[in-house]
Amino acid sequence: MKTITLREVAQLVGGELSGDEHGNIEIRGAAIIRDATEHDITLADDERLAEQLARCPAAAAIVTRKFQPNGLPWVAVADVHQAFTRLVRFFRPPRKQKFVGISPAAHISLSARIAADAQIHPGAVVGDDVEIGAGCVIHSNVTIMAGCKLAEQVELFPNVVLYEGTVIGPRSVIHGGAVLGAYGFGYRTVQGRHERGPQLGYVEIGADVEIGAGATIDRGTYGATVIGDGTKIDNQVMIGHNCRIGRHNLLCSQVGIAGSCSSGDYVVMAGQVGLADHLDVGDRAVLGAKAGVMHNVPVGETWVGIPATPQREQFQFWGIMRKMPDFRRHVRQLELRIEQLQQQINGRADAA
Amino acid sequence: MKTITLREVAQLVGGELSGDEHGNIEIRGAAIIRDATEHDITLADDERLAEQLARCPAAAAIVTRKFQPNGLPWVAVADVHQAFTRLVRFFRPPRKQKFVGISPAAHISLSARIAADAQIHPGAVVGDDVEIGAGCVIHSNVTIMAGCKLAEQVELFPNVVLYEGTVIGPRSVIHGGAVLGAYGFGYRTVQGRHERGPQLGYVEIGADVEIGAGATIDRGTYGATVIGDGTKIDNQVMIGHNCRIGRHNLLCSQVGIAGSCSSGDYVVMAGQVGLADHLDVGDRAVLGAKAGVMHNVPVGETWVGIPATPQREQFQFWGIMRKMPDFRRHVRQLELRIEQLQQQINGRADAA
Amino acid sequence: MKTITLREVAQLVGGELSGDEHGNIEIRGAAIIRDATEHDITLADDERLAEQLARCPAAAAIVTRKFQPNGLPWVAVADVHQAFTRLVRFFRPPRKQKFVGISPAAHISLSARIAADAQIHPGAVVGDDVEIGAGCVIHSNVTIMAGCKLAEQVELFPNVVLYEGTVIGPRSVIHGGAVLGAYGFGYRTVQGRHERGPQLGYVEIGADVEIGAGATIDRGTYGATVIGDGTKIDNQVMIGHNCRIGRHNLLCSQVGIAGSCSSGDYVVMAGQVGLADHLDVGDRAVLGAKAGVMHNVPVGETWVGIPATPQREQFQFWGIMRKMPDFRRHVRQLELRIEQLQQQINGRADAA
Repeated sequence: MKTITLREVAQLVGGELSGDEHGNIEIRGAAIIRDATEHDITLADDERLAEQLARCPAAAAIVTRKFQPNGLPWVAVADVHQAFTRLVRFFRPPRKQKFVGISPAAHISLSARIAADAQIHPGAVVGDDVEIGAGCVIHSNVTIMAGCKLAEQVELFPNVVLYEGTVIGPRSVIHGGAVLGAYGFGYRTVQGRHERGPQLGYVEIGADVEIGAGATIDRGTYGATVIGDGTKIDNQVMIGHNCRIGRHNLLCSQVGIAGSCSSGDYVVMAGQVGLADHLDVGDRAVLGAKAGVMHNVPVGETWVGIPATPQREQFQFWGIMRKMPDFRRHVRQLELRIEQLQQQINGRADAA
Repeated sequence: MKTITLREVAQLVGGELSGDEHGNIEIRGAAIIRDATEHDITLADDERLAEQLARCPAAAAIVTRKFQPNGLPWVAVADVHQAFTRLVRFFRPPRKQKFVGISPAAHISLSARIAADAQIHPGAVVGDDVEIGAGCVIHSNVTIMAGCKLAEQVELFPNVVLYEGTVIGPRSVIHGGAVLGAYGFGYRTVQGRHERGPQLGYVEIGADVEIGAGATIDRGTYGATVIGDGTKIDNQVMIGHNCRIGRHNLLCSQVGIAGSCSSGDYVVMAGQVGLADHLDVGDRAVLGAKAGVMHNVPVGETWVGIPATPQREQFQFWGIMRKMPDFRRHVRQLELRIEQLQQQINGRADAA
Repeated sequence: MKTITLREVAQLVGGELSGDEHGNIEIRGAAIIRDATEHDITLADDERLAEQLARCPAAAAIVTRKFQPNGLPWVAVADVHQAFTRLVRFFRPPRKQKFVGISPAAHISLSARIAADAQIHPGAVVGDDVEIGAGCVIHSNVTIMAGCKLAEQVELFPNVVLYEGTVIGPRSVIHGGAVLGAYGFGYRTVQGRHERGPQLGYVEIGADVEIGAGATIDRGTYGATVIGDGTKIDNQVMIGHNCRIGRHNLLCSQVGIAGSCSSGDYVVMAGQVGLADHLDVGDRAVLGAKAGVMHNVPVGETWVGIPATPQREQFQFWGIMRKMPDFRRHVRQLELRIEQLQQQINGRADAA
């Protein structure tokens, strides 16, 4: 087991040590607050974690320079995560990435054009006329069907499937089991049978895109389904045929987008959001978790709920619902007062 | 770059040209309205697209014979999609499908029976006693476990997994990463441990079924989980053990159906619908997007909402919600009127 | 076709025959009530199935000792499912599991340590320094990346992907296409670009865990994402980075849990539940289908709805909604009564 003194920690991360005069405390590991035990160093990137940190048995913490935690020594740094990354790597050194080259156990078409420094792992299948750029890593059991084009430094994790003609921009990463380019869900019903529509399109992924494990993106009907540069897509997201997703979007896990939708730039969709087909979502719009979107969303708005509406409407709705029991009591009181008025009037009538 | 005149376009698709007397406009590509640029031809299958078409920079459009668009020349045809398919194929000719036969890099049990004209790609694994019919295409890295039976012309895209004993009807297509026949989610809890129930069944897919990428269909407990003829299932749909899905259903993306449900024929479930277990959905029923179904759905009804109810109830509910702020204002006015009545009565009492 | 008399059925399962004096009825198959035809034996594990059983054409039924069904002979046993399993196996004998050993068509690192009796199917890929315990079964086209550790009797179904450093406890089963250890969805946005956070962690699965087809569990940021002993996870469940799921949980299909959540022991989440990030769910809590959880859930509580609340609140809410049309009618009546009072008062004023 590796150990290191707190003074050495401070040197390693270029930080200032406080709360342990000699810096002799021994540190044997690095773990987040929830997991840290008494010989670990932990981290807190926000003063709001002060209370959690005070309850944590860790020997010390890496914190921002603004934050002076209670109850344990700390090392203050400019970038908490960078510093902690260095410590985690010290205690659990990352595996050296071996250059595997092109495995003889990969199945590669003779017509594929593959950069000299690309790596292709065993069991990967590369179809006719595929182009694979410099520095690409194709993990095992990936299938790249005919005519796909990968720019430089693309990484495809195991079991990714690219259907024919998929285009991937530079530095994009696709995680295990994702499927790009399957047929769109478009049928026309002729004499009681659903006949599959044209499936002539393909999928086109921009630069610096990340696509999560098990995500699926269907090909366009006639042309491309497009994912814009810098967009990040979480696991198990589904994007239908003909969609055109903008740049720098964040699409969280299990989002489902029906066919022919578009989104602007910097759109955020939280987990399990669903979009009906043919909708447009404006730049910087935010869709709350589980939102069921049935209409176009204007630029910059935040929509939530099922069916989704601007957030303030949904909040008003929830507010009303919470007050409904009081409201009903109030109406019953009004009824009693009407009753009393009636009796007063009747009483006076009797008296008269 | 291929180019073609608009007159040649009209000949190619057998349509009538209007709005370009000589037909000399050059067309260099075919794209949908959203994507078309000035040298493209586009398409519009519905007059309601007139406005979008008028704003589109395309050089011309393929339209139905009823539709005379403004602002650009057009070619009128009987079947817009058939004609446009022809044009897309002209500009981007489809890849010739090579007959690959049975790849020496596939792993095939000696006891498997495989039709002479079936194709099996590299890395596919075919277990004991598997039967594969005429014209089947098994793409790379597919796993077909022991005892599966594929009728003729079945296509399994890369990385499909068929557990033991799966049966697939003729002409059915299963997309990348779909998993058929995994264990059902059935446990009984004995002394604090969840013990797995019997897993003796299998999955049985009818004829002309399509199953989307990443979909999962669990085996029956004792017998079959059944998908009826002609049913189309989108990506990431989950169908639990013992379900019996009818014929010609359309199950959109991310639908989840718990164990032992059944559906009739021509049922439609929109995206992200969920069904509790042991429910029956009648013929031609429609379940709206994100519906959470807790009860049997009668024949022909449309249900929406969470929990799902007949559509009119849900609409009424949404209508009420929208009017709640007005309604509360109204009740406050009634209160004021009661106040006034009280004062009038009191006033008169004072006067008396 | 195998046949067996009802008397022989009773002997085979150790049960008592009733309703068929001689036990000569021939049984040719075993099927659940929905599927059984006239020569099948069926089963009913609950007296509430009496009506369904009476309508079922089956020749006989296996039932519990408390239950005397109408309209068909029966065999009473202590454990209906155990008995029926025996019958299903009689009619459709399970395939003998061949010991395949380590396939020469698997791709195995020289530095991997593999127990002598482990089985590894064709196309599986085992990375550097991987440890595979006694009795493990690694199905075809599985990828186990470097540094993973599998305890004894782990079964990985086809196309499972384990990223680097994944740890799996004894007797755990992972179904087809599941992906463990992909990068967490954590970014920080720097000058308009989403930069991926640290991905130094891994996934740690306890003993006796089952993970469904297509499920995805992301690695921790710095340490482990943990699944506790005995927990069962259904198909297409998504568990985010840094989560710590307790022991003996049941997570139904399509549940999505955002990053850094924790759950206690014996938690149940029904289908399509979603949890926001950094939430804690107490021991024995139950989350209803499609619940959208935004707050910590206390020990033992049942929460439902979007946003999720304790069940009684949600029931109250639904109750109010159902009564809203009546309520509005009631308020209109109050208005009429106020009108009448006003007229009475006015009338008297006129009279006066």
